[in-house]
Amino acid sequence: MDAKTTRRGLLKGGIAAGAGLLAGTTAAKAAGDPAITEMQPWNQMLGDGVDANPYGKPSHYEAHVKRRSVEWLTADPVSSVNFTPLHELDGIITPNGLAFERHHGGIADVDPAKHRLMINGLVDKPLVFTMQDIMRFPRENRVYFLECAANSGMEWRGAQLNGCQFTHGMIHNVMYTGVPLRYILEEAGVKTNGKWIMPEGADASGMTRSIPIEKALDDCLVAFKMNGEALRPEQGYPLRLVVPGWEGNMWVKWLRRIEVGDQPWHHREETSKYTDLMENGKARRFTWEMDCKSVITNPSPQAPILHTKGHTVLTGVAWSGRGTIPRVDVTLDGGKNWHQARMDGPSLDKSMHRFYFEFDWDGSPLLLQSRAHDSTGYVQPTKAQLREIRGVNSIYHNNAIQTWYVNEKGIAENVEIS
Amino acid sequence: MDAKTTRRGLLKGGIAAGAGLLAGTTAAKAAGDPAITEMQPWNQMLGDGVDANPYGKPSHYEAHVKRRSVEWLTADPVSSVNFTPLHELDGIITPNGLAFERHHGGIADVDPAKHRLMINGLVDKPLVFTMQDIMRFPRENRVYFLECAANSGMEWRGAQLNGCQFTHGMIHNVMYTGVPLRYILEEAGVKTNGKWIMPEGADASGMTRSIPIEKALDDCLVAFKMNGEALRPEQGYPLRLVVPGWEGNMWVKWLRRIEVGDQPWHHREETSKYTDLMENGKARRFTWEMDCKSVITNPSPQAPILHTKGHTVLTGVAWSGRGTIPRVDVTLDGGKNWHQARMDGPSLDKSMHRFYFEFDWDGSPLLLQSRAHDSTGYVQPTKAQLREIRGVNSIYHNNAIQTWYVNEKGIAENVEIS
Repeated sequence: MDAKTTRRGLLKGGIAAGAGLLAGTTAAKAAGDPAITEMQPWNQMLGDGVDANPYGKPSHYEAHVKRRSVEWLTADPVSSVNFTPLHELDGIITPNGLAFERHHGGIADVDPAKHRLMINGLVDKPLVFTMQDIMRFPRENRVYFLECAANSGMEWRGAQLNGCQFTHGMIHNVMYTGVPLRYILEEAGVKTNGKWIMPEGADASGMTRSIPIEKALDDCLVAFKMNGEALRPEQGYPLRLVVPGWEGNMWVKWLRRIEVGDQPWHHREETSKYTDLMENGKARRFTWEMDCKSVITNPSPQAPILHTKGHTVLTGVAWSGRGTIPRVDVTLDGGKNWHQARMDGPSLDKSMHRFYFEFDWDGSPLLLQSRAHDSTGYVQPTKAQLREIRGVNSIYHNNAIQTWYVNEKGIAENVEIS
Repeated sequence: MDAKTTRRGLLKGGIAAGAGLLAGTTAAKAAGDPAITEMQPWNQMLGDGVDANPYGKPSHYEAHVKRRSVEWLTADPVSSVNFTPLHELDGIITPNGLAFERHHGGIADVDPAKHRLMINGLVDKPLVFTMQDIMRFPRENRVYFLECAANSGMEWRGAQLNGCQFTHGMIHNVMYTGVPLRYILEEAGVKTNGKWIMPEGADASGMTRSIPIEKALDDCLVAFKMNGEALRPEQGYPLRLVVPGWEGNMWVKWLRRIEVGDQPWHHREETSKYTDLMENGKARRFTWEMDCKSVITNPSPQAPILHTKGHTVLTGVAWSGRGTIPRVDVTLDGGKNWHQARMDGPSLDKSMHRFYFEFDWDGSPLLLQSRAHDSTGYVQPTKAQLREIRGVNSIYHNNAIQTWYVNEKGIAENVEIS
């Protein structure tokens, strides 16, 4: 491959041509840099062996990379929701230690040897499975995003939280290993009048939701692993339901029972909560699918631009509960000009996608937005468009375009412009 | 979708038809099971909140899932290699905390603010980059396996280590985020006589290897993230070279310098080590690519079959430094009969692949083997075939078929039959 050709390809991809040195200092200049001229401790000393951490941890220099809560957001003495630090991540996999969580009765500490999954209701043969039983069914591996219906919920009425971790961090994206739910339901035999299922959690909140049988028999998984290892306790260890593309609350954690019925149950978490109150006082029902959405993660309020001007990498994530993300547009000037972003990494159904836009920053203020398109042709709406249809009474299902203002110093903040 | 049709599809996929109940106990029988009839502590008590673990950890019930060392394998006072617990994992992503590591001077504890990457040698303009400079280049996201050349090295002369963690655990598979090395080399400008690069690590061992310029300009990455978050210290934090499909030792960790030269350096780790001594006393040179290989992870010596007979899930992983894995064959009887395994999960270039074979175990002893085919048409060899060509003097590049013997109780052990 000819290096020059590749470089030209890169320039076409978004970096302004003729901008000269992309980054770095010539070695002659660097001769005065003690990081180059002096030996560092790690060059000279034998480091730790491998025995200290049979289960490894991040570097102590990465202590700032963590899930965070918003103190005023939950009334409990302990927080019941935290947020993924999207601005510190790249690619599309959320590491398990940083995957946000939301619970309604605390993190259940379940003994897998005593955990059971019961299938009952409108089935030919009610069944009870141990974890070992579940491991005897055929398994599948799929990468899916899980987004809380209330993600970006505080932003319905205006720019509120200053950081994409808080505005958009109720999402994670991992590879699940699990048994297709249809295999388990088929084992019990769903009766012809069995039209709905109700998964139930083993935690103190006894979370329940109603899911139509079509979805249950389509792509739902009874999952026991995430990113290769056992589910984390806060993600439902040892068993959770995976409901691809649908709101996170339905992905019942610590899954202990699935009842088959002939109609939806209309339980608490699908009536007084997780429904969208409209302007006319009525609530939308069955708003399960998470619409196409995106956010710029860098730069963002927690992640300023750290140089004065020149080559700058803008990046973010996009997803849709209805398919893949073939395209994301980015604007630097609040929507006057849109540029097609570069998608990178695997494009998987109902998974997070990563986009980049490399540009030559002139050091003047920016109004950044991203706008995702999904594989059905749907385009992410502005806040104004969304409010026009839905009003501002809901805290759920805000998939509107997010705006960051970046000042001359590279500092970003959450603003609203439409 | 008709449940019955799906079930029949499943049966065709490997499970013997007519075997009746796949797993589970009828609810009537389970009525005597206290795990069903009694309330469990986690059903009744508010669990922990989210604040306790801003960076999450596995359940305490998973404490056995960890990297392990082999005491006699390294002479250091502290071990210099540990192994991925493949038998505890599923899917294709290795979680960062469980990714094996091998080092030659301990785990360097590098301060990213003081870390530099220098490009020198046969370039137009020697350059020095800070971590912030690196972050201004365009990035890519790719899932790759990294396998140590010595993986399965103890097995050349016979069945030695009792568990796939030890025989095959010097491999991991993660999503990297990094800058294509060609962008960085192009910035410095490789001279026309620049035909090789020598990456160098910042740890006390100062690891160096020679890599031809064609590979450097093709798919190598200067990576700073794995599975979304910063590289782990033992994986080269803050910067490592990614050399897709090639032996792990070349993926220099704590990457601080890349020299461009006109010939290979023939340094220590590519002459006295990481070369294959043949029967005639000569050593193979430039054995970079990791050949196609596979192993059954369950059942295996550390992971017995836990039921007496009936439906059983066999699973394992396969990979090739030359492409993808379209097919894996499995035998239950030491090679008399081969069955095509079911591949599942994303099939990505130079990445680990997951395979399954579901079968109805009659409770008699098994001789398990897997045999991978890669996208070039190459087929994984038997140990006899490999020894015929390479002899038994090397500890590197053993990609032969592995055999596990499983007795009537489901206990597996490492044996050799060919």
